[in-house]
Amino acid sequence: MFKMDDRILVAVSGGKDSLALWDVLNRLEYKVDGLYIGLGIDGEGRYSHNSQEKAEAFAAEHNLHLIIEDVTKTLGASIPEAATLTHRGRGKPCSLCGLTKRHIMNRVGFHGGYDVLATGHNLDDEAAVLFGNTLNWQVGYLSRQSPVLEDNPTGFIRRAKPFCRFYERETAAYALLRGIEYIYDECPHAVGAKSIYYKELLNQLEADRPGAKLQFYLSFLKARGEGVFNIEQDQSGLDLKQCETCGQPTTIPGQCAFCRTWESVRARKQSG
Amino acid sequence: MFKMDDRILVAVSGGKDSLALWDVLNRLEYKVDGLYIGLGIDGEGRYSHNSQEKAEAFAAEHNLHLIIEDVTKTLGASIPEAATLTHRGRGKPCSLCGLTKRHIMNRVGFHGGYDVLATGHNLDDEAAVLFGNTLNWQVGYLSRQSPVLEDNPTGFIRRAKPFCRFYERETAAYALLRGIEYIYDECPHAVGAKSIYYKELLNQLEADRPGAKLQFYLSFLKARGEGVFNIEQDQSGLDLKQCETCGQPTTIPGQCAFCRTWESVRARKQSG
Repeated sequence: MFKMDDRILVAVSGGKDSLALWDVLNRLEYKVDGLYIGLGIDGEGRYSHNSQEKAEAFAAEHNLHLIIEDVTKTLGASIPEAATLTHRGRGKPCSLCGLTKRHIMNRVGFHGGYDVLATGHNLDDEAAVLFGNTLNWQVGYLSRQSPVLEDNPTGFIRRAKPFCRFYERETAAYALLRGIEYIYDECPHAVGAKSIYYKELLNQLEADRPGAKLQFYLSFLKARGEGVFNIEQDQSGLDLKQCETCGQPTTIPGQCAFCRTWESVRARKQSG
Repeated sequence: MFKMDDRILVAVSGGKDSLALWDVLNRLEYKVDGLYIGLGIDGEGRYSHNSQEKAEAFAAEHNLHLIIEDVTKTLGASIPEAATLTHRGRGKPCSLCGLTKRHIMNRVGFHGGYDVLATGHNLDDEAAVLFGNTLNWQVGYLSRQSPVLEDNPTGFIRRAKPFCRFYERETAAYALLRGIEYIYDECPHAVGAKSIYYKELLNQLEADRPGAKLQFYLSFLKARGEGVFNIEQDQSGLDLKQCETCGQPTTIPGQCAFCRTWESVRARKQSG
């Protein structure tokens, strides 16, 4: 996944997976910085505030460099506020949040000169995504679900998920044994999310047939690696244009979805 | 699936799906005979005996031709007895039973001059098979799971599953409304079968997300039809040899799995 002289950027949420990943990569002596994205999810529970504290404390304790991007400051509204000002996601902020995080991670990673963006997705995460995509046979998504997505020279950074073969309970055990302080709460907006439903169903399967979750994911990777899916397998072959506003790669001509959405958020905020 | 002058052979188990299918095809004025395979599953409950009675009664009532193949008479042992004499299936007769039924159905269909073999598999059956194959990403099976499998000139009859888009509750409702007498019992050996476990899991998914089961199956068919799987899609392209004993097509040189298994069953029975 990585060469020893790669500059790695880890996307850090303050949760166990991403902090454990940062810890592992640092102990393996990779050159690895963190990126925390402040989403402004600060109603009851102060999710963003508390998770940022954990990320900052970890960086300070291990003398690591943490880049902080604050959505409210940079883009003009917090994620929950912006979600009320756009039709994207039908009231739920998750779609907007994912779009925004992907954009920021790629921008910081690509323009910061990093070789690879690492995220803390574990087996439970990946199996749930795979399960959702399989229930609807979304073959485009299936063919691009991979532990490593190679970069695209026009502007997508290489991406890697080093923990994708570890059960969530394994990353939790690692974080516990290493004494890593992380935020226990899930994002309050995740309640009722499809991904959580799929995780529960897969947990039931795993309880009845131990190993089924790993087998599901690994046999998928094997089939995918053998070229089973008859279409483009990664982002290197996508037909990409440059967004005329931000310059990031996009599959649609003109403005990318990120710029379009946030321009409309700011316009509505001013007029409203 | 069928032309009006096709000669159709319906595999009839005495259950609701296959009898409902026979009824529908007969009412639509297709030329359709039935095939009942006596498996000799006649411990407590007398499953085979009772299911044969239902099949015979239906044929008599509608003045239809029913072919009866008795495994014990033809092959020398009942399915449960044979299962104790072979290592196939590790004590469970289901693998041997499937192998045997597929062989007999193809032999009777092909040599009887039928154009197509129709089976009563419903959506619940197909979705459970699909689910099992997907959990292990068995792409060979996935690519051949289809409402219609075209024939292979060297000896595989065309196969069709006209009810594959109907929920089990729909075929049950049809059988009920038509007053079809069918056997309610499941095969006693099916208890604990993976397929039943998968059906239960999918039923839970369906209860939480109505339509999910149909969507899972239909989106699979759509993806498959679009050529997503990068391998042979049906039996017409298989590299087949002829079994040196029975002459039926097989993918392995020499004897087919059916002949090999039953020869060994008869040898053990004689010696044992």
